Amino acid sequence: MSETPILLHQRDARGVHTLTLNQPRSFNVLSEAMLAALAERLQAVAADDGARVLVIAAAGKAFCAGHDLKEMRAHPQLDYYQQLFARCSRLMLDIQRLPVPVIARVQGVATAAGCQLVAQCDLAVAAQEARFGVNGIDVGLFCATPSVPLVRNVPTKVAMEMLLTGEFLSAEDARARGLVNRVVPADALDAEVERLVTAILAKPREAIALGKAVFYQHRETGIEAAYQLAGQTMACNMVHPVAQEGVQAFIEKRAPAWRAGV
Amino acid sequence: MSETPILLHQRDARGVHTLTLNQPRSFNVLSEAMLAALAERLQAVAADDGARVLVIAAAGKAFCAGHDLKEMRAHPQLDYYQQLFARCSRLMLDIQRLPVPVIARVQGVATAAGCQLVAQCDLAVAAQEARFGVNGIDVGLFCATPSVPLVRNVPTKVAMEMLLTGEFLSAEDARARGLVNRVVPADALDAEVERLVTAILAKPREAIALGKAVFYQHRETGIEAAYQLAGQTMACNMVHPVAQEGVQAFIEKRAPAWRAGV
Amino acid sequence: MSETPILLHQRDARGVHTLTLNQPRSFNVLSEAMLAALAERLQAVAADDGARVLVIAAAGKAFCAGHDLKEMRAHPQLDYYQQLFARCSRLMLDIQRLPVPVIARVQGVATAAGCQLVAQCDLAVAAQEARFGVNGIDVGLFCATPSVPLVRNVPTKVAMEMLLTGEFLSAEDARARGLVNRVVPADALDAEVERLVTAILAKPREAIALGKAVFYQHRETGIEAAYQLAGQTMACNMVHPVAQEGVQAFIEKRAPAWRAGV
Repeated sequence: MSETPILLHQRDARGVHTLTLNQPRSFNVLSEAMLAALAERLQAVAADDGARVLVIAAAGKAFCAGHDLKEMRAHPQLDYYQQLFARCSRLMLDIQRLPVPVIARVQGVATAAGCQLVAQCDLAVAAQEARFGVNGIDVGLFCATPSVPLVRNVPTKVAMEMLLTGEFLSAEDARARGLVNRVVPADALDAEVERLVTAILAKPREAIALGKAVFYQHRETGIEAAYQLAGQTMACNMVHPVAQEGVQAFIEKRAPAWRAGV
Repeated sequence: MSETPILLHQRDARGVHTLTLNQPRSFNVLSEAMLAALAERLQAVAADDGARVLVIAAAGKAFCAGHDLKEMRAHPQLDYYQQLFARCSRLMLDIQRLPVPVIARVQGVATAAGCQLVAQCDLAVAAQEARFGVNGIDVGLFCATPSVPLVRNVPTKVAMEMLLTGEFLSAEDARARGLVNRVVPADALDAEVERLVTAILAKPREAIALGKAVFYQHRETGIEAAYQLAGQTMACNMVHPVAQEGVQAFIEKRAPAWRAGV
Repeated sequence: MSETPILLHQRDARGVHTLTLNQPRSFNVLSEAMLAALAERLQAVAADDGARVLVIAAAGKAFCAGHDLKEMRAHPQLDYYQQLFARCSRLMLDIQRLPVPVIARVQGVATAAGCQLVAQCDLAVAAQEARFGVNGIDVGLFCATPSVPLVRNVPTKVAMEMLLTGEFLSAEDARARGLVNRVVPADALDAEVERLVTAILAKPREAIALGKAVFYQHRETGIEAAYQLAGQTMACNMVHPVAQEGVQAFIEKRAPAWRAGV
C-alpha cells in the first residue's frame, strides 16, 4: 500500500501536469510497467479539458536510460519485441497528438528511448550536466525508433554519428543542434521550465491545440498542401472567440479577457 | 494624385527589381491592399524577361508586422479569413515560383506573416537590430501559415518555441538557426544586399531559373525521385548555350561571354 | 602496365576499405573513368561480407572538383548528359545503400559533385583548410544534383546561397551547418578518421546494416509510417544473436563476445 509509484502525476490549479519518472535506481527505464503508466497518464491528461501544459520530468541522477534491457532479454521472442516497440511508438505519437505542449525537463543522461522521449517532446529544457545519446548500438541494437524523432530535430550527419558511434552530445551541443531549447545550471532548471510554462499559460489553449496539430501535419506534406492546411486552420482559429477577443484587445491596447485568469 | 503608393517598385538597368513596403506608420502590415499590390507586382516581375533579382524591402522602423488585425477584426466571417489566408499563401508560393532569386532586406522587426515573408524568400539579409517573431499567439491566433516556411528553415524545436511563446529571435540567432543568411550593421545593409545581388548578376538567368525550380521541387520528394528530377534538370542546363559557353570559357581560362554585360 | 590507377583501393584485415581518388593533377574530377571505377569498387565493397567501413579519400591538394568539364564539353548531347548524371546519381545512391558506414575524408576543396560526394556520405571529417562549394553556377550550370544531398544536410537558405552565389563554406562553417561531422588540423585528419572507424568497428556489422537502411528510409516518410518501419527493424535487430548477446553482456557487466575480435 505504501509502495512508491513508478510514475508520479501532479496537476496544479493552473492545469499544469507534471509526470515524473520515479525509478531513479534503475535510471527510470521504460519498462513495460512504466510504458503502461505513461500511456495511461497521457490519456488522463488528454481527457482533462483544463490541461494547459505537460512537463515530463524524472527523479534521480538520470533522466531516462531507455528500454529495460533485463526485461527485454527475458522475452527473446520477435512478437514480444514487435509489441514492445509498437507500444512505445504509440506513446511517442500520443505526445505529439496531445493538444497541450509537452516540455521535457532533463536533469541527467537521456539515452536511447530516453533521448527519443526528449526529441519527441515539443520543447525541452536541460541542465548543463545533461547528456544525450542513442547508444543502443553499444549492445548491438541500433536505435532505430529513437532515430525517428532525432533526425526530425538535428542535422542528418549529427544524428548518424550519434547512432553509429554511440557517442553523447553535451547539453550545449544538444541546444546548438536543435535537440533542446534551453540549457541552464541544474539549480535553475525548474525556474526555466516555469518560464516556458508561464509563457504558454498566457496564450489560449484552443489556439495552441489547433496550431500544434497542424504544425506536425503540414511539416510532412508538400508546401502547397501545407499552406492549404495551415490557411484553413488559421481561418478557423480567427473566427474562434479567443482570437476575436485577442485581436479586439490588441486594437484597444488592453489585455485580452482570456488572459485574466493567468 | 500625389498620394504615396503603399508599395514602391523600382527596376534598375541591370534587371534588379526592388519592392518596398511603404506604410511605415502601420508597420507595413499586409493589408488587403498591400497583398493585392504585392501580388500584382510579383506578376510584373515574373513577366519581365530581363528581371534578374527581386529585393523585398520595407520603409521605416519595422520590416513587416504581419496581417492587418484591424481589417481582419472588421470582417468576422470564416469565408473572409479563408480567402485572406489563401490569397496570402498564393503570394508566398509566387515568391517560391518566381524564376529569379528573391532577397529579403530586413531592417527592423518581422512578425507573424512578416516573418513568414522573410522565411519564404530564397535569401535574407538582416540588420543587427532586426528581430523575428511568429507571435500571433499573443492575440490568440497561432501563426499556422507562417510556420509553413519557418519549419522549412529552422529546427523544429526552435520553430515550436517561437510559435508557442511568441518570443523573438535576435538577428544573430536567426542567422545561426538558418532563418537569414547574413547579419550586418544597419548602415551596411544595402551594401550586403548589393553584394548578393552582384554575385547573382554574374550568373546566367536561365541556369538560376532551372535550378531554383528543381531545388524546391526535389526537396519535397524521396531522394531517388529527387535525383531523377535534378539529373534531368542538369542535363537540360548543360545543353543550354549558357552552360556550353560557360564550360568552354572555363576550359579556355577566360570569362564567359554572358558575363560581359555585368 | 606500371600506370598509376585513378582510384586506389585498400582493404585492411579489419574490413576497413579505403577508396582514394588518385588524379591529383586534375583535382580528382569525376570523369567517366573515375565514375566507372568508383561504381565498380562500391560493388566490390558491397559484396565483401567482412567489410565494416568505407573511407572515401583523395590524393593531392583537392578532394574532388566535381564533374570533368572538358569531357562534358566534348559531348554536347542531351542524352550523353542524361546518362552521365544518371550514372553519377546511381553512384551516390549506392553510397546510401551500402550496408557499411561511408566516411568522407576531406583534405582540400570539395566542389560541385565533389561537395555532393561529401554530403552523400554518412559521415565526413575535414581538414581545417577544406572548403566546400556548389559553384557550377559560375560556369552557367546550376548544381542541381549536388543540391539533393546538400539540402538534406544543411539549412535551406544556406544551401540556396551556396547554389546561387557559388561561394564557399569554410570547414568550420560546414561543421556548424551540418555538412561535416568533425574538423581537425590536416595532420590530425587520419587520426580523426581512425577514431570514427574504431568506434564503428566496436559495434556489430549486422545492427549497423539494419539501422542505416531504415534511417534513410524512415526519414522520407510521415512519422507514423516511420515509427512502424523503425519499430519492425528494432524487433528484428533485437532477436538477432548480436543484440541478444550484447544485452546479455550488458546485464552481466562484461564486453559482448562480438567485440572480442576488435
